Amino acid sequence: MECKFTARSAIGVFDSGLGGLTVVKELKRHLPFEKIVYFGDTARVPYGTKSKEAIIRFSIENTQILLKHNVKIVVVACNSSASYALKKLRASFSVPCVGVIGPGARKAVNTTRSGRIGVIATSATTASGAYPRVICGLNPQVKVFSQACPLFVPLVEEGWFNHNVTEEIIEHYLKPLKKEKIDTLILGCTHYPLLQKVIQKVVGNNVILIDSAKETAQTVGAVLAQYELLRKTKLQPKHQFFVSDKQQHFNEIAEKFLGCEIQSSIVKL
Amino acid sequence: MECKFTARSAIGVFDSGLGGLTVVKELKRHLPFEKIVYFGDTARVPYGTKSKEAIIRFSIENTQILLKHNVKIVVVACNSSASYALKKLRASFSVPCVGVIGPGARKAVNTTRSGRIGVIATSATTASGAYPRVICGLNPQVKVFSQACPLFVPLVEEGWFNHNVTEEIIEHYLKPLKKEKIDTLILGCTHYPLLQKVIQKVVGNNVILIDSAKETAQTVGAVLAQYELLRKTKLQPKHQFFVSDKQQHFNEIAEKFLGCEIQSSIVKL
Repeated sequence: MECKFTARSAIGVFDSGLGGLTVVKELKRHLPFEKIVYFGDTARVPYGTKSKEAIIRFSIENTQILLKHNVKIVVVACNSSASYALKKLRASFSVPCVGVIGPGARKAVNTTRSGRIGVIATSATTASGAYPRVICGLNPQVKVFSQACPLFVPLVEEGWFNHNVTEEIIEHYLKPLKKEKIDTLILGCTHYPLLQKVIQKVVGNNVILIDSAKETAQTVGAVLAQYELLRKTKLQPKHQFFVSDKQQHFNEIAEKFLGCEIQSSIVKL
Repeated sequence: MECKFTARSAIGVFDSGLGGLTVVKELKRHLPFEKIVYFGDTARVPYGTKSKEAIIRFSIENTQILLKHNVKIVVVACNSSASYALKKLRASFSVPCVGVIGPGARKAVNTTRSGRIGVIATSATTASGAYPRVICGLNPQVKVFSQACPLFVPLVEEGWFNHNVTEEIIEHYLKPLKKEKIDTLILGCTHYPLLQKVIQKVVGNNVILIDSAKETAQTVGAVLAQYELLRKTKLQPKHQFFVSDKQQHFNEIAEKFLGCEIQSSIVKL
């Protein structure tokens, strides 16, 4: 697919649903004059329980949706997509593609002192082995301990941030990682920062939590600078949001989370 | 869409994923010489958190997949689909369509003595108001108390049937229904029978649980008899299974659950 973009073009971001808004928030903070085009695949959410093949196919379709808006970079804000599809996207499209795995992994490797890093993520991201692979490439001395936490996304979506069972469920999943005496923990799913308080309580204050969203925004800035694709104008940009289902629900959550008026449009898949 | 079916044709069953296998099991028991063609939309599961529009669109596509196999009846084994799409399917296709709502509702109305029925289901099914509407049509004197339980499907899929938090989560959702002194409780989602033991413990033995799968199989038999579409041959039928993702995972679960060898095929949506 041919890509026609300039420095004036938007940053494209896709996610399986709402979680990628954490990346949008950090992009807005870090690159306030860049326009963002967001696509949330709310009709097929979640990706974390789907197969590699399905995740790759959905990720290609999502990238094509963003490219229709001539985006100058594609940010894969979904960890499951970044784990399985990033290589394929880079091979298929000429636009630069940035995932959330690399930036989070780099930050964790620079943070750990004991060389023992924990990663919590969805089943798909965990099964892909993407975090251990990237971390090993950065520093083969570092030990990585992974744990899939399939109930975290439903807990967040139900809004049970402080429910009794939330701490109990977090305790259950984090027990094996605590035993391994990790000093750094990557929140390997865009939903997890919403459980950050209870996760921090459970692992204790000596473990540093890594939220990939912030690191990803910085990487996007660096990549755009490298390709001389940063916007030159200092005008307030008009962002665009697209979803494949539940437009109204998305608007409400996104408005609360980003603190600005959102009117998303529906994309039929 | 034209439908070409005879009494020799198969019974078509669709569900958002694996849950509809509870209906397949009951169909096999009740109509052992009928062939079944099953489609599980594992690429887009779950439906219970999606919009009415998406659920209707997916249900039409699933029905079209079954009709390619010339099925003589379409069983909508997914409560969310049955709640929103059954009317549309009946208007769009000439093949008879049976949902899981009507049979479960009828059984509950015939079972209750106090006239106070509880319904637990996904967010979509609960929001649709389908159970109260159907029950009111059968007996306007009966009072219906509905409760969405969004964490039940993830709990079942994680296999936490007897985990500490399972009972606590069930207690949380069922508390308002217990207060209403229901004597009958409809398990309004095909996943929920897998939590039946703990649900029964929480509501107590005086509350009768209604599993729609059994009732639906009986309704299918009655409808086929009425249309003179029951198979005449007494041969062991060869069932067919189709999924939109995670074929191997489906085979494993289906084999364990149905106790026979399963080789599903992938349908690309």
